[in-house]
Amino acid sequence: MAKFIKHNCYVGIVGAGSIGVAWAVVFATRGYPVRLYEVATDRILHAKDEFLSKISELKKFGLIENDIDAIAPLLSIDTDLESITDKAIHIQECIPEIKEDKKKLFALLSELTPPDVPIASSTSFLPASTFASDVSHRERCLVIHPGNPPYLLRIAEIVPAPFTSMSVVEKSKQLMIDVQMHPIVLSHETTGFVFNRLQGALLNEAYSLVDDGIVSIEDIDLIVRDALGLRWSVLGPFETVDLNTRGGIKQHAARMGPTYEKIGAERGTNTSWGVELVDKVAAARRAKLPLEKWEERVSWRDRAMMTLIIARRKFLGQD
Amino acid sequence: MAKFIKHNCYVGIVGAGSIGVAWAVVFATRGYPVRLYEVATDRILHAKDEFLSKISELKKFGLIENDIDAIAPLLSIDTDLESITDKAIHIQECIPEIKEDKKKLFALLSELTPPDVPIASSTSFLPASTFASDVSHRERCLVIHPGNPPYLLRIAEIVPAPFTSMSVVEKSKQLMIDVQMHPIVLSHETTGFVFNRLQGALLNEAYSLVDDGIVSIEDIDLIVRDALGLRWSVLGPFETVDLNTRGGIKQHAARMGPTYEKIGAERGTNTSWGVELVDKVAAARRAKLPLEKWEERVSWRDRAMMTLIIARRKFLGQD
Repeated sequence: MAKFIKHNCYVGIVGAGSIGVAWAVVFATRGYPVRLYEVATDRILHAKDEFLSKISELKKFGLIENDIDAIAPLLSIDTDLESITDKAIHIQECIPEIKEDKKKLFALLSELTPPDVPIASSTSFLPASTFASDVSHRERCLVIHPGNPPYLLRIAEIVPAPFTSMSVVEKSKQLMIDVQMHPIVLSHETTGFVFNRLQGALLNEAYSLVDDGIVSIEDIDLIVRDALGLRWSVLGPFETVDLNTRGGIKQHAARMGPTYEKIGAERGTNTSWGVELVDKVAAARRAKLPLEKWEERVSWRDRAMMTLIIARRKFLGQD
Repeated sequence: MAKFIKHNCYVGIVGAGSIGVAWAVVFATRGYPVRLYEVATDRILHAKDEFLSKISELKKFGLIENDIDAIAPLLSIDTDLESITDKAIHIQECIPEIKEDKKKLFALLSELTPPDVPIASSTSFLPASTFASDVSHRERCLVIHPGNPPYLLRIAEIVPAPFTSMSVVEKSKQLMIDVQMHPIVLSHETTGFVFNRLQGALLNEAYSLVDDGIVSIEDIDLIVRDALGLRWSVLGPFETVDLNTRGGIKQHAARMGPTYEKIGAERGTNTSWGVELVDKVAAARRAKLPLEKWEERVSWRDRAMMTLIIARRKFLGQD
C-alpha cells in the first residue's frame, strides 16, 4: 500500500457539493490524500457517506484497483481553510457558480497556498480572468473543468487565463494524467470552454426544434441516445463523419457540407466548411487513419458498436 | 421457420450501395424477403457478400435471433425494376444523393408499384417535396432516413412531404416498428431532418472551434467520445441536463441557459431559452421522471455508464 498512497502531500478541495465529492473520488482512488473544505453542517455529514458510496460502487464494477479500506481514510473534511492549503500540491475549487464568491475565495487561496501550487476552479462557464485577475498570485489560477461525473467521464478541460503561467498549466496537466483524467488543454479562454460549447450547440438546436414543433422532446432524446450518442461514444464527431462517407472527411464535406452550412444559416450562424478548414481536418484524420485502412476501421466501428449495444441491454431494459 | 418468414410479399430496395445493403439486412433479419435492384455489375457481385458478412457478424454478437441459413435466401438481386415493384409492400430507395436521378426514379416507381405502397427515400438531406412533387402518386412518397449503419442504430426518421398521405405515414411507421427500428415521425419537412440537424449543430461548432484554433481535432473527438457521447448514449441531451443540476431542467436552464444563449449568439444564432419553452421541456421531463425520483435516476445513470465503460474497454484498448 505504501506505493499506492502519496504521503506527505495532499490535494485541497474547496466545497463538498457533488462536484467536490466527485473530485475527491478521482484523487483518492489514485492515492492522493484529500482535504475537503466545507462549513455547511449538512454537507459535511453527507459528503463522507457520498464518497464511500461512490468508491464502493466503482469497486463493485471493477473500475478501481485499490481496496476500499485503503482509499476511505484518504478523505478528511475540514472547516479551516488554512489546514487544507498548508501542504497542498493542488487546489480544486468547487463552490457554487457565483462570480463574487469565487473572487473572494481566490484572493484568499492565493495568499494561503505555497508558491507554484495550481489553484483550479471547476466552474462550467466562468473563465478564470473573470474572477482571478486581481489576486496577488494570479499566475497560479486557472480553470480545470471536468465532465459530470468526473470519476466516469475521464476528461478535464484545462483552460488557462492570459495570466496563467505555463508551468502551472504543465503541472495541472501532469496531475490530471496521474489521476487518469485525459487533459484537454485549450489554447485560450472561450465562453463555455469546449465541452459546453459542443453540448450547447446541440442543446440550442434541440430547444429550437422543440420550439419549431418538428419533433417531440422524447424523440430527440431517443435519436441521440440510440443513434448519434451511441456512435459518438465510439468515435467522436470527426471520426464519425470520416467513416460515414467512402473517401473520408473530404468526401463527407463535399456531399454534406452545403446542407450543414444551410442548417447553420437557418439559425443565423455562418460556419465555414471552406476548403482550407476541411483540408486541415482531413489531414488530421488521414494522419490517424490512411484511406487504405478505411474499410477495416468501418468494420471495427461496427464491432465496437455491437459490443456497446449488448452492454446497453443490461440497463436499457429497466428504462 | 414458417412464422419467421413473411411469405407472398417482399420489400423492394433500389440501389445496392452500403445503405441499400444495410436496409436489406434490417428487413431480411426480420423475415421480409428483399428484392434489391441494381444494374452496376461490380455492386451486384459485392452486395450479396456484404449482406452475408453483415448478418454473420450480427449473429456472432447475438444481435439476431434467426439462423443465417434462413435469412440468407431472403435476399435476391434483380436488374429489372418491374420485378422488384410487382408485389412489393414497401419500396426503399437508396440511390446516390442526386436530385434529378431521384426525380426520374420516383416518377417510374410511382407508376410501377401497387396502390397504397409507400415509396420511401433513404436520403440524408433531400426532402421528398424536392423530388416527388410532380409524380402521379405523390401521396405515397416520403423520406425514411436511417442512421448509419441502420442495422445498429435502430431509429428511422419518417419525414412526410406536405402531399404525403397519413395512411402512408402510418403504414411506414408500423413497418419500422415491425423491423425493430424506432420510428421518429417529424411533423413536417425541415433541412437535414432532425438527426442531421442535431449532428450538424455539433459539427458546425466543432469546425468553428478548429477554425478558432482553440483545441485540436483529436481532442474534440476525445471530449465527445469519452464524455459527451458516452453520457448521451445512456441518456439523450435533455435527460442529460435534467440530471446534471439538482432541481432538474428548470434549474439547469436558470444556471446554464444564459451561457448557452451567449455561445449561440457568438456564432450568430438567437436560440431562445425562454420561460415557456423551458417549461415545456421541463413538463415533458417531469412526466417521465418526478423530481422525487431524481437521485435514484442519477444513481441509475452512473451504473449505466459504468456498464458501458467496462464494455468499451474491450475495443478501446485496440484503438
